[in-house]
Amino acid sequence: MADAEASAELPEEARPDGGTLQVLRDMASRLRIHSIRATCSTSSGHPTSCSSSAEIMSVLFFYIMRYKQSDPENPDNDRFVLAKRLSFVDVATGWLGQGLGVACGMAYTGKYFDRASYRVFCLMSDGESSEGSVWEAMAFASFYSLDNLVAIFDVNRLGHSGALPAEHCIDIYQRRCEAFGWNTYVVDGRDVEALCQVFWQASQVKHKPTAVVAKTFKGRGTPSIEDAESWHGKPMPRERADAIIKLIESQIETSRSLDPQLPIEDSPEVNITDVRMISPPDYRVGDKVSVALGCASRGRTIAFASTFAAFLTRAFDQIRIGGLSESNINIIGSHCGVSVGEDGASQMALEDIAMFRTIPKCTIFYPTDAVSTEHAVSLAANAKGMCFIRTTRPETMVIYTPQERFEIGQAKVLRHCVSDKVTVIGAGITVYEALAAADELLKQDIFIRVIDLFTIKPLDVTTIISSAKATEGRIITVEDHYPQGGIGEAVCAAVSMDPDIQVHSLAVSRVPQSGKSEELLDMYGISARHIIVAVKCMLLN
Amino acid sequence: MADAEASAELPEEARPDGGTLQVLRDMASRLRIHSIRATCSTSSGHPTSCSSSAEIMSVLFFYIMRYKQSDPENPDNDRFVLAKRLSFVDVATGWLGQGLGVACGMAYTGKYFDRASYRVFCLMSDGESSEGSVWEAMAFASFYSLDNLVAIFDVNRLGHSGALPAEHCIDIYQRRCEAFGWNTYVVDGRDVEALCQVFWQASQVKHKPTAVVAKTFKGRGTPSIEDAESWHGKPMPRERADAIIKLIESQIETSRSLDPQLPIEDSPEVNITDVRMISPPDYRVGDKVSVALGCASRGRTIAFASTFAAFLTRAFDQIRIGGLSESNINIIGSHCGVSVGEDGASQMALEDIAMFRTIPKCTIFYPTDAVSTEHAVSLAANAKGMCFIRTTRPETMVIYTPQERFEIGQAKVLRHCVSDKVTVIGAGITVYEALAAADELLKQDIFIRVIDLFTIKPLDVTTIISSAKATEGRIITVEDHYPQGGIGEAVCAAVSMDPDIQVHSLAVSRVPQSGKSEELLDMYGISARHIIVAVKCMLLN
Repeated sequence: MADAEASAELPEEARPDGGTLQVLRDMASRLRIHSIRATCSTSSGHPTSCSSSAEIMSVLFFYIMRYKQSDPENPDNDRFVLAKRLSFVDVATGWLGQGLGVACGMAYTGKYFDRASYRVFCLMSDGESSEGSVWEAMAFASFYSLDNLVAIFDVNRLGHSGALPAEHCIDIYQRRCEAFGWNTYVVDGRDVEALCQVFWQASQVKHKPTAVVAKTFKGRGTPSIEDAESWHGKPMPRERADAIIKLIESQIETSRSLDPQLPIEDSPEVNITDVRMISPPDYRVGDKVSVALGCASRGRTIAFASTFAAFLTRAFDQIRIGGLSESNINIIGSHCGVSVGEDGASQMALEDIAMFRTIPKCTIFYPTDAVSTEHAVSLAANAKGMCFIRTTRPETMVIYTPQERFEIGQAKVLRHCVSDKVTVIGAGITVYEALAAADELLKQDIFIRVIDLFTIKPLDVTTIISSAKATEGRIITVEDHYPQGGIGEAVCAAVSMDPDIQVHSLAVSRVPQSGKSEELLDMYGISARHIIVAVKCMLLN
Repeated sequence: MADAEASAELPEEARPDGGTLQVLRDMASRLRIHSIRATCSTSSGHPTSCSSSAEIMSVLFFYIMRYKQSDPENPDNDRFVLAKRLSFVDVATGWLGQGLGVACGMAYTGKYFDRASYRVFCLMSDGESSEGSVWEAMAFASFYSLDNLVAIFDVNRLGHSGALPAEHCIDIYQRRCEAFGWNTYVVDGRDVEALCQVFWQASQVKHKPTAVVAKTFKGRGTPSIEDAESWHGKPMPRERADAIIKLIESQIETSRSLDPQLPIEDSPEVNITDVRMISPPDYRVGDKVSVALGCASRGRTIAFASTFAAFLTRAFDQIRIGGLSESNINIIGSHCGVSVGEDGASQMALEDIAMFRTIPKCTIFYPTDAVSTEHAVSLAANAKGMCFIRTTRPETMVIYTPQERFEIGQAKVLRHCVSDKVTVIGAGITVYEALAAADELLKQDIFIRVIDLFTIKPLDVTTIISSAKATEGRIITVEDHYPQGGIGEAVCAAVSMDPDIQVHSLAVSRVPQSGKSEELLDMYGISARHIIVAVKCMLLN
């Protein structure tokens, strides 16, 4: 076993015989025909991109990869991530530049959590390599010595709008992969024997991920379309399709098929339902969200990705795709709002609630104290779908007892009496401001109801409306976030059909300066003092 | 002039003499002292990171760069982008990984638009190079042969949480830069003479950008802190500061200063106010938004960046920072909403309004037909601050005459009469659905008012409220966007203090399938048919 490049020949017993090679070629031809037929029938799709990688797919699925055909979700199966704009295996995509990060997460999980034999293959287009996220993932994979990971660059020269910058300069791809610490092979992507050879070599290499740079031709096998521009994402013309299919069929010599090798069954049993305590791995932002999406796939781990909430804007595309594929990833955003204090506006997340609210089925926790934060983490670990936990930087007083029970979508009414005149809704740091306002107003014989939302999505509309009705239809929301897409708008929308409810929203309505946390809460209108003024104004109207 | 690496010695006349070199060393010492004093007085900051790059800064600002000290905004000045987490020159940051993209935009503008002599220098930390956006920018710069761009990697080995993956392995940085097509020099970052030499060489190289990989030491010059872990982002202990400053002062030999070289005055005059027609350059997504931010700096160009609106989520961090720095960038997002049709959910932007609404002072246009789109582009080109134009994929009928006047923040009332019972607010594709609903309802003697918002931010609250009052307080909003952070919530928030106004919002409330545009509008509840039902329901209550 070589430490770096294994340049040895395939051993006799692993070498495909002539018959096998012909079957692999025929399988590639069948894949081409299938892609032409499928895209003609829907009048949409990428048959030319499918054609360039047909031999790669054939060799991987019928000679190299180990999996149970009857059980695609089997944890021992090798994983395949199709990052090219076609379809995906474990994570929804159609987006360039995310696949390799996801594959890194799977390979990391396989090598370090599962310590199992399954391997991860990721097929990328050459166009995709202009995305920075690919090179972030490349650096990640070599740093963590992910020798169970193989990335294939399908260099077919052509992208959406014509030739790509590097065209067929295979050595540019090779040098970049090598510079990023990958064991790298260059191969003719049409040559099934050469492909068998390099994928076998990759399996022998230790401590390095392997990149296979395959020179291919878009639309391969179709005269006048092969390697020609302006055929990206277009089905073959219907009137030519039959003749093209006939031509490809004429190259098929056998009707034999090949059974994939069975997986090595050494993945540990994992039960991630009803988790009581977790020890979350911690990732940095950026492509690492893709990595966490990969870790979370197939229910092998509970992935928590954590960073400053503001930095999560860099990963909005990955979060969005994670949401579409109903990933179970959990994301923790710290340093939210002006309460961050001295670090300044660039570090203060004031748009993260708006961002996560747009993710379908995403649960948003905004715990207030240490007790509710622990419950949020535990509920997130057990919840289906994406969860976001927004945490606050300053130390906050514990306000809940250890016995308090928390549920998703259930707000806490912290202060209430029959004489309440206004409902004040807060979350996180603003709950303390609302409580301080309640104390002060009490001295003036003004009673307010105080609600701690706990989850922003789903919103506890029942509690909000019943509290509003009990306080003569008056609601004040107060949040350490911009008004747009935040708690105030969520509450306004929830009560918008109720003509008897008025909502006054306090939020951070301009770009904040740097300063002390408490000063900033007051400067941007979300402190106890501002709540008191808002309550009195509302009572005057 | 060499085509690639210029390895020649400095010519005699350009070589700094011994006295000059000592002044440069002394300037570096003064910078160190200044950073220690400044961070001690605010109890916050990065003196150790400043110290590692003190010689680089000294050589650049007092020997290499050409600029007028008295006129920092002069268009002929060389540009300096400090991408390290300190501060910035033309674009607000504090964020890793965006600086080089911005520098690329400036260099591209200098080389291809201004065709001027000014050069662009970008100082980056080694930690920053783990961000994918850096490598995306590296590929961009070499592809466009930006030989007026110099990137300096300040490799001081240590990041926020200890040693970085590549530590002091300078050759890793060198190989990666070379593989990405950059002319690359390795240099001892403490050696002012060597720095003068490589920066001069960089100025002689044609057709390639230059990378200077400088080996440096964090906290350089301070015993027991130099090259030690856990001093990132921490001021020196106050009790030691005086002794440290005294030690550094003892190394200063001269009180001489150096005047920077004056710029070559060959930037063309540019007037980008009151633009009547524009020919917008078109950028791809991702780091290219950073590039456009760079192009837009210093008022040299009007930058338009355009892509599928969904793909803009990848650039949310860059958009956010562009907003904080009040960049004049204009962004066009196409393919919004379910009206995209067959391409499927991953390509449909249903969160872009929410995203851009959170950007302070961002103007959001959502034109309906070709006429209003042209006006939106023209208004955006002349507007201060960031603008986002949301465009629709299907062809839409022209509904405005060429003479129609459009203003930011001014909605259009398309149908109105004294008998109107409900105000229906649409934008883009839903305006046509609202008009169709109005036509159908008219046959049943039900009159509705139809509003085309034109700009979502600022919202025309006056027109909305006056229309609502004229229609007995009834508003229906209809949008091709998720409910969260969209038009419905914006309207709800705008009227939330008015107890006589009810809002019913129609929006896309679940992940859409792929299908025909018209079918999808109906399937997700935002077609004329659904508007008619909503109007009738509202009138029943």
